[in-house]
Amino acid sequence: MPLYPAEFTLYTFRMDAEIIAVGSELLTPFHQDTNSLFLTDQLNQIGIEVRLKTIVGDDRARLANVLSEALGRSGLIVLTGGLGPTEDDISREVASEVLERPLTENAEARRRLMERFARTGRPMPENNLRQALVPEGAELLENRNGTAPGLWIEKDAAIVILLPGPPRELEPMFAAECIPRLKRISTGAVIRTRVFKIASLPESEVDRRIAPIYKKFENPSTTLLATPGGIEVHLRARAPSEAEAEKLLAAAGDPIENLLGDHIFSTRGESIEKVVGMYLMMKQKTLATAESCTGGLLSERLTRVPGSSDFFAGGAVCYSNELKTQFAGVPAALIEAEGAVSKPVARALAEGIRKRTGASIGVGITGIAGPSGGSAEKPLGLVYIALADERGTEVREFRFPGDRARVRWLASQSALEMTRRRLSG
Amino acid sequence: MPLYPAEFTLYTFRMDAEIIAVGSELLTPFHQDTNSLFLTDQLNQIGIEVRLKTIVGDDRARLANVLSEALGRSGLIVLTGGLGPTEDDISREVASEVLERPLTENAEARRRLMERFARTGRPMPENNLRQALVPEGAELLENRNGTAPGLWIEKDAAIVILLPGPPRELEPMFAAECIPRLKRISTGAVIRTRVFKIASLPESEVDRRIAPIYKKFENPSTTLLATPGGIEVHLRARAPSEAEAEKLLAAAGDPIENLLGDHIFSTRGESIEKVVGMYLMMKQKTLATAESCTGGLLSERLTRVPGSSDFFAGGAVCYSNELKTQFAGVPAALIEAEGAVSKPVARALAEGIRKRTGASIGVGITGIAGPSGGSAEKPLGLVYIALADERGTEVREFRFPGDRARVRWLASQSALEMTRRRLSG
Repeated sequence: MPLYPAEFTLYTFRMDAEIIAVGSELLTPFHQDTNSLFLTDQLNQIGIEVRLKTIVGDDRARLANVLSEALGRSGLIVLTGGLGPTEDDISREVASEVLERPLTENAEARRRLMERFARTGRPMPENNLRQALVPEGAELLENRNGTAPGLWIEKDAAIVILLPGPPRELEPMFAAECIPRLKRISTGAVIRTRVFKIASLPESEVDRRIAPIYKKFENPSTTLLATPGGIEVHLRARAPSEAEAEKLLAAAGDPIENLLGDHIFSTRGESIEKVVGMYLMMKQKTLATAESCTGGLLSERLTRVPGSSDFFAGGAVCYSNELKTQFAGVPAALIEAEGAVSKPVARALAEGIRKRTGASIGVGITGIAGPSGGSAEKPLGLVYIALADERGTEVREFRFPGDRARVRWLASQSALEMTRRRLSG
Repeated sequence: MPLYPAEFTLYTFRMDAEIIAVGSELLTPFHQDTNSLFLTDQLNQIGIEVRLKTIVGDDRARLANVLSEALGRSGLIVLTGGLGPTEDDISREVASEVLERPLTENAEARRRLMERFARTGRPMPENNLRQALVPEGAELLENRNGTAPGLWIEKDAAIVILLPGPPRELEPMFAAECIPRLKRISTGAVIRTRVFKIASLPESEVDRRIAPIYKKFENPSTTLLATPGGIEVHLRARAPSEAEAEKLLAAAGDPIENLLGDHIFSTRGESIEKVVGMYLMMKQKTLATAESCTGGLLSERLTRVPGSSDFFAGGAVCYSNELKTQFAGVPAALIEAEGAVSKPVARALAEGIRKRTGASIGVGITGIAGPSGGSAEKPLGLVYIALADERGTEVREFRFPGDRARVRWLASQSALEMTRRRLSG
């Protein structure tokens, strides 16, 4: 029987969601539930707000308690994790008990499971058959990236969705199988966001510039967020229709965009490496890298972008002085005279790799990422970045705060921002 | 069977904790509660387990509901956030209501507040006085980095702690003010963990092998975890002393370690790149990489390890055929004849980069990470990895599942595992 008869849609049904993440590892100091961020984003886009999140261990009694509570207060309950093949994986069984829907083996689920194992050529361990057990009346949600099907269960006025824990299984399943169904029964209210990403201004400076504007608006709400990639300004508008939400976003967002101008590298959520890649392709240019302290991070980030072979010529990770000479043609005498971490060596790396590879742009990075190797004269965090193209070479000196990982990240980030500005300017 | 020997239970007061994070921003896709990781670590060290975490918005009714529930099941409840000076900051008032302890202005809290503002020279906004309101019978917890004092409230058998949300206020407050008090009333029990990391067996296979052992033990408890780096087996023991906890860990952990044998790459939490680095340094060897589809990810991972300049010679990211020839000496005719993604080219990359750099070991990777570039004969996910050292060259063919990011990650992971096995064997 359909849960929502046609006439029901005459009234609006405001659906609040709560998320229950299941897994003892999520109650240790080492692991965190991150699936709920993805789920919240997806739900917000179709106008559903998340009101509560609970993280519970592999503990039947507590999960049963939490799920019962949730059924009493929320229209939509999303459980993540605990659908694996082992005894520890309790979500299926607890949901069956609390919802009073006995588990039975589902022929379709069993067939898909057997097929999946047959395809990979591995024998199926007996315990995997647990994943074919399904609470009565549940619908299966297809898992394209794993063995555990998701489950969609309707009970009285509530919808309970069980999703597998691994993000690569959960994300496509939720987007493809759940969002379309939820859209049909949701109110039609929407939440729309606009995100400005900035790589080259500190958070306090961004706030100082734009606070006079965003403080005038309650809808959209504005959040500033410091991420490893820079500062993000998130605007969030809620309205009965997409057009109205976009109008609200424009009222606050357009003046903010004007104020921040060229400091914004992305308005659609793209990463800075993607933006650099788009510029390179648009201008039919190529780029090559010669990295010392970043150890390949810059080339790794550039090649994350699908199709990067069209704009990325290649790179050298020249950790030793010898390889700086061999791969990027940096004169040994120059390294001897100036030191490996110096402006002239950064310049020679950029110009050398450009020449060696025939790329339009060469980027060179040399610095001290730590934890050792610093001195009074050349402290930890000192990094030189050079960019060479047909118009000449720019070399900049940076002093990055933080540990090895952070210095390396900020160096790659600054190299990408220098490249973006050169290409956009 | 009792978890603890009889005589132990005579004196123990088993305290379970739950954490409630308060703040509407924690229910958006952009922010996450991270305080609970710090709190869990601190609590575990004095033997207290965290059994549940809840994230709730600035919503009086829901927070009251969650806090009442918590009082019914946990001995220790830690609330974080919601102690600020605005109307949105509801933790103080909700705790007062639920615990039935009326709020009164605390003279000491008021004095500290006035002093703090006097010191900074800023005038105190009227609403800041809300931060001097304290539930009857509560003890103040000093805040050295902010205006909101924390609160320690005892009610029947439970302890409720209210902490400010910003980590730089919460962390020193909890460590200095709460941990010593909790230690005095906690059991003196400790929690110790052992972690086995495995790169080369699927989760179901690990489970099949070790389930017969870990199922015999309730203490330590065992959790299997699939991470991007492979499978982790977490053992967690709880005992009155460190020595006893270690003994419990050994009883279950030693046979598990034996069963998994050489598949375990780490028993102390190290990453596989760190383990490879340690082997290389121990054997005084160096490594060089020639990467195509991984785009620098392998060299980036190796150079995450502090001190990697001692064992990492350098690397080439040869995305184009020309650079495979130029940097790693792969004959152009070989690429022409076999294709860039082929066993012979992987071999030539590994042997060539080894020769060029003079490293003891050369690793070559070539494959199709997607999303495009696949064919029936050479599908997406096909990757060849070669390892060359003085004993010869090994080339392996892999077919990795998943998207571009996952194929690249698995390729780098497999290259590290091949290297580890060569070095340990």
